[in-house]
Amino acid sequence: MITVLAGGVGAARFLEGLRLTWPEDDITVISNVGDDLEVYGVHVSPDIDIVLYSLAGMVDRRGWGVMNDTFHFIDALERFGYETWFRLGDRDYATSVFRSRRLAEGASLSAVSAEIARSLGVRLRLLPITDDPLRTMVSTTAGMLEFQDYFVRRRTQDEVLKIAFAGEKRAKPAPGVLDAIAEADAVILAPSNPLVSIGPILAVSGVRAALRETRARIAAISPIIRGGVVKGPADRMMRSLGLEASALQVARLYEDFLDVFVLDVADAELADGVAELKIQPVVTETIMSGLEEKRRLAAATVRGLGLALP
Amino acid sequence: MITVLAGGVGAARFLEGLRLTWPEDDITVISNVGDDLEVYGVHVSPDIDIVLYSLAGMVDRRGWGVMNDTFHFIDALERFGYETWFRLGDRDYATSVFRSRRLAEGASLSAVSAEIARSLGVRLRLLPITDDPLRTMVSTTAGMLEFQDYFVRRRTQDEVLKIAFAGEKRAKPAPGVLDAIAEADAVILAPSNPLVSIGPILAVSGVRAALRETRARIAAISPIIRGGVVKGPADRMMRSLGLEASALQVARLYEDFLDVFVLDVADAELADGVAELKIQPVVTETIMSGLEEKRRLAAATVRGLGLALP
Repeated sequence: MITVLAGGVGAARFLEGLRLTWPEDDITVISNVGDDLEVYGVHVSPDIDIVLYSLAGMVDRRGWGVMNDTFHFIDALERFGYETWFRLGDRDYATSVFRSRRLAEGASLSAVSAEIARSLGVRLRLLPITDDPLRTMVSTTAGMLEFQDYFVRRRTQDEVLKIAFAGEKRAKPAPGVLDAIAEADAVILAPSNPLVSIGPILAVSGVRAALRETRARIAAISPIIRGGVVKGPADRMMRSLGLEASALQVARLYEDFLDVFVLDVADAELADGVAELKIQPVVTETIMSGLEEKRRLAAATVRGLGLALP
Repeated sequence: MITVLAGGVGAARFLEGLRLTWPEDDITVISNVGDDLEVYGVHVSPDIDIVLYSLAGMVDRRGWGVMNDTFHFIDALERFGYETWFRLGDRDYATSVFRSRRLAEGASLSAVSAEIARSLGVRLRLLPITDDPLRTMVSTTAGMLEFQDYFVRRRTQDEVLKIAFAGEKRAKPAPGVLDAIAEADAVILAPSNPLVSIGPILAVSGVRAALRETRARIAAISPIIRGGVVKGPADRMMRSLGLEASALQVARLYEDFLDVFVLDVADAELADGVAELKIQPVVTETIMSGLEEKRRLAAATVRGLGLALP
């Protein structure tokens, strides 16, 4: 069993490769929920949906939402005074309407997520990190913003002063999360933003301790390449928080539990620094431009963990 | 002020003509809510929406829903086990999401309907007959059916044994309804199904008495032409309830309060029968094939009521 800690687009791409390398039935995904939001009367779980749509082969080319979706519903909402900067497509909305109905009926987010996965024909197990409210808040020069407000509405334009997770103290790991870490053969931190995708997962009580204590080897793939990113604001966020925007810095953030760190060939000169942290560096191509590149990155990660490829 | 009792498509077409004949600001529409339903997590008011979309110039050619709408949302819901026979379009759904949010916030259906009318740019006043739950139930050979179940899912295929209005005893007229009847210069019953469109309106306590007592003259336009209908199941419903499916029978249903009855030229021979009921017959073209035909029918009705056209 391999357990993957996952954010959105980067994690989804990595998982598309991993299931070509490792049996899908033996993969558990622990998903970030810090960027969940309530909008248009429904509960949206963007990272969960990105992963499930990707694995169902129905994600749009842009990386989120449903392929070739239309936006007639939210555009029509504008007449009624709604802000519609959160672009939820007509087909995409159906997922959240179902999720919200089940949550209102008393189902947990983990139960609903499993139902959605099954409905979309996704076989691997996906667990939200928590069934409790956990919301990433971004303190910026423009004030305290909810994550999607910072990320989508204001297009990550604001300088980030601090990141916090509302609900962090009360959020318990969802059923199965700690076991999935403790009993895994390996744990992989997907190439996701360490601050706002992996960060909320590590903030839930007991998770970081479980990672330190598990006998499973743990790998992370750097989302930072030569100080930049393929997608998203991770590099700028790190810099504005006073961190170096580098693969090595990402390794340092996970230093207390990490065994293997996968970094891009363009960052090969950082491998020695990684090794000095007593973390085994794996230098490989990490840009997932196509399915074959996704598969190769997953295979390199699995080999780096010392697991025999099936 | 002219007050119009209205169902769906027939009423919407008539109102498109009426506002070319009479100032829109001096028209009040009292709308049927017996075919309202809860579906896909929202409250849908089909008759209200048909009238508002028509008057906003955005109704689809088929007579309901938004012009050129797509059905991506409800088709996507099928994956999650929803029945999707009630075809609510993506743009159409937005109206009901707004309505449901406002109802959940404690707004009345009349308040929300006024907000929707304003948002769509419709100037005339539209009042639901009641803010309370009132649901048309159709007892058939296939069992007791909610109206949309009979009308849409089972395509009016079942023989109708009885029609009832759940909530009838407790439903109070919405604010303004009784005054709109009492203080009108004229009241018009649109060419709508007398049993399931006008029927629920007349079933609300105090409404029929208000029609009997108002000093306003009252006209009705027959939705039945030569024993048939332009649209809908009114003729079959009447027959299976043991009523004659004729314009004259429609006049008889309103005999206790009606002053003027508009019937089609094809039914001219029924005019004497109408006159015998002490109701003034107006024989004219009633098929509203285009805007000019709608305007002419409205003008003939207004003239029949003895009102001077402005």
